[in-house]
Amino acid sequence: MMRYADNTVGAIMEFEVITVRPEATLAAVQRYLRRLGKMPENTDKLFVTTRNKLLLGELELQTILLNDAQKRVGDVMEGDPVTFQPHEEAEKVARTFERDNLLSAAVIDADGKLMGRLTIDEIVDVVYEETDNDLRRMGGLSNDDDVFAPVSKAVKTRWAWLAVNLCTAFIASRVIDGFEHTISQLVALASLMPIVAGIGGNTGNQTITMIVRAMALQHIQPGSFSFLILREMGVAVINGLVWGGIMGAVTWWLYSDPQLGAVMTLAMMLNLLMAAMMGVIIPMVMVKLGRDPAVGSSVMITAITDTGGFFIFLGLATIFLM
Amino acid sequence: MMRYADNTVGAIMEFEVITVRPEATLAAVQRYLRRLGKMPENTDKLFVTTRNKLLLGELELQTILLNDAQKRVGDVMEGDPVTFQPHEEAEKVARTFERDNLLSAAVIDADGKLMGRLTIDEIVDVVYEETDNDLRRMGGLSNDDDVFAPVSKAVKTRWAWLAVNLCTAFIASRVIDGFEHTISQLVALASLMPIVAGIGGNTGNQTITMIVRAMALQHIQPGSFSFLILREMGVAVINGLVWGGIMGAVTWWLYSDPQLGAVMTLAMMLNLLMAAMMGVIIPMVMVKLGRDPAVGSSVMITAITDTGGFFIFLGLATIFLM
Repeated sequence: MMRYADNTVGAIMEFEVITVRPEATLAAVQRYLRRLGKMPENTDKLFVTTRNKLLLGELELQTILLNDAQKRVGDVMEGDPVTFQPHEEAEKVARTFERDNLLSAAVIDADGKLMGRLTIDEIVDVVYEETDNDLRRMGGLSNDDDVFAPVSKAVKTRWAWLAVNLCTAFIASRVIDGFEHTISQLVALASLMPIVAGIGGNTGNQTITMIVRAMALQHIQPGSFSFLILREMGVAVINGLVWGGIMGAVTWWLYSDPQLGAVMTLAMMLNLLMAAMMGVIIPMVMVKLGRDPAVGSSVMITAITDTGGFFIFLGLATIFLM
Repeated sequence: MMRYADNTVGAIMEFEVITVRPEATLAAVQRYLRRLGKMPENTDKLFVTTRNKLLLGELELQTILLNDAQKRVGDVMEGDPVTFQPHEEAEKVARTFERDNLLSAAVIDADGKLMGRLTIDEIVDVVYEETDNDLRRMGGLSNDDDVFAPVSKAVKTRWAWLAVNLCTAFIASRVIDGFEHTISQLVALASLMPIVAGIGGNTGNQTITMIVRAMALQHIQPGSFSFLILREMGVAVINGLVWGGIMGAVTWWLYSDPQLGAVMTLAMMLNLLMAAMMGVIIPMVMVKLGRDPAVGSSVMITAITDTGGFFIFLGLATIFLM
């Protein structure tokens, strides 16, 4: 038995199949089944092959029951069934199962010979795992880290992204440090800057979550790029005007400084716009580069909205308030 | 036809079923099926009922094919099948389908009468939607907000959580403002505080994502609470010592201030511990209160690690450095 990568058809296929010949009558098939006495679990169809295991078609149990017992298998079988090859990606195959409402399907090799079958119960497991994995990957969690892994394993699997997160946080910190002079003159900036960064992070994460999942479910066509970016920017402009306006007014009132309020409003708008753009662009670029758009997307967008938010806010403050 | 809530069995059940009587022979059933000429899609079993539609059992197509044609339905049927009622939650039913490898199942009313059936293809759709919804809910995205909704709808569905996020960011900002005097004396604190908050947010989100999903997949028993909290705190202590130690050393080197470095290390450790605890406690409490632990969990944990991180870091700085 060959070994196949975890996420492929080969890893989840079953080898127990019932095959019949095209020249047999349905009555003969039924006698054969009675002699067998049982079928593999989740059998909804038999496979029709030549003596050399070349797949010719599929014979559903329904078909045996609905047709006259004297008919031949070759005349009532489905001659052009959906088939898969062992190296295909399980997640893509799961979508085909969903789209075509399959219960089982043949797995064939490159020569068209029957190797085994895929059943819907394995596919349901794939679907559960897949969406779970997307969730984990977005936050930089490994697929192996489950709730009952020991501490040592949990530390190891989260190590890398924690390091990435520390590096990005350090960069954001250096951006703030660059504006030390500005902050020392107006300490209020230190308390306001996390608001600008936070709102950007929240918006960016919402956008990127939606895009990543829509890509996974193949809801996005390559041509939708400009529509999506315009839509997200439209949402950002509206939210920026409303919430940026409110926070600007609150800032003005808190610090009795209308200019500080205006800087707050402008910074929030700009950071929301950046978050929206990056939330669309990052996953699109990842896919172009042939990488999984879910991996660490949340860590990345937060890094950008933090660093960008601090830079925009403190930069505007330096220009307009100093 | 009655109307059932979106996420219930009633909303996804099908009404097309084939029923047979227990006293019929398998040969009679097969003649009946040939007369019908076709079966509803995804039929893997027939339902055995009385004349009054009371469900007595299930007859798999396999059973008809494997047994002698003279046997009676009542003798070969599955007499104690898994059944569902229309008000049951679709997501829970999906897990039963997965656990028992079901392809279809009867839906019965309170009196045990057959109403319809559930098929695996509807269940697969439920699974796809469910995990998707969890992802969205964690970030405070509505289920209705898809990538191609118009701007006005997207604004409306994200409105509420953006407001919540702004409020929590505002609270964090007030915490910083309370330490204005400390920051004005040591501006370096302003650049270092986002590192403490950020690392807490990252860790807290990893923990809460894992717990929420494990709860959804029913991997967590009520008794696991103390194990989980101890495990997450163990991970936090190790990460706090290592990464907090590294950042403390970097801070010492950057600002030539060993005390500032020590405050940094201690603050990172404490915030990581808090993030780990809250990442376990929040979803557990939500479930106890009968609420969906996924809704807004990411927004909530970030709010806590931000506010807490600022408070811990600036508080320690005020105590030890002023």
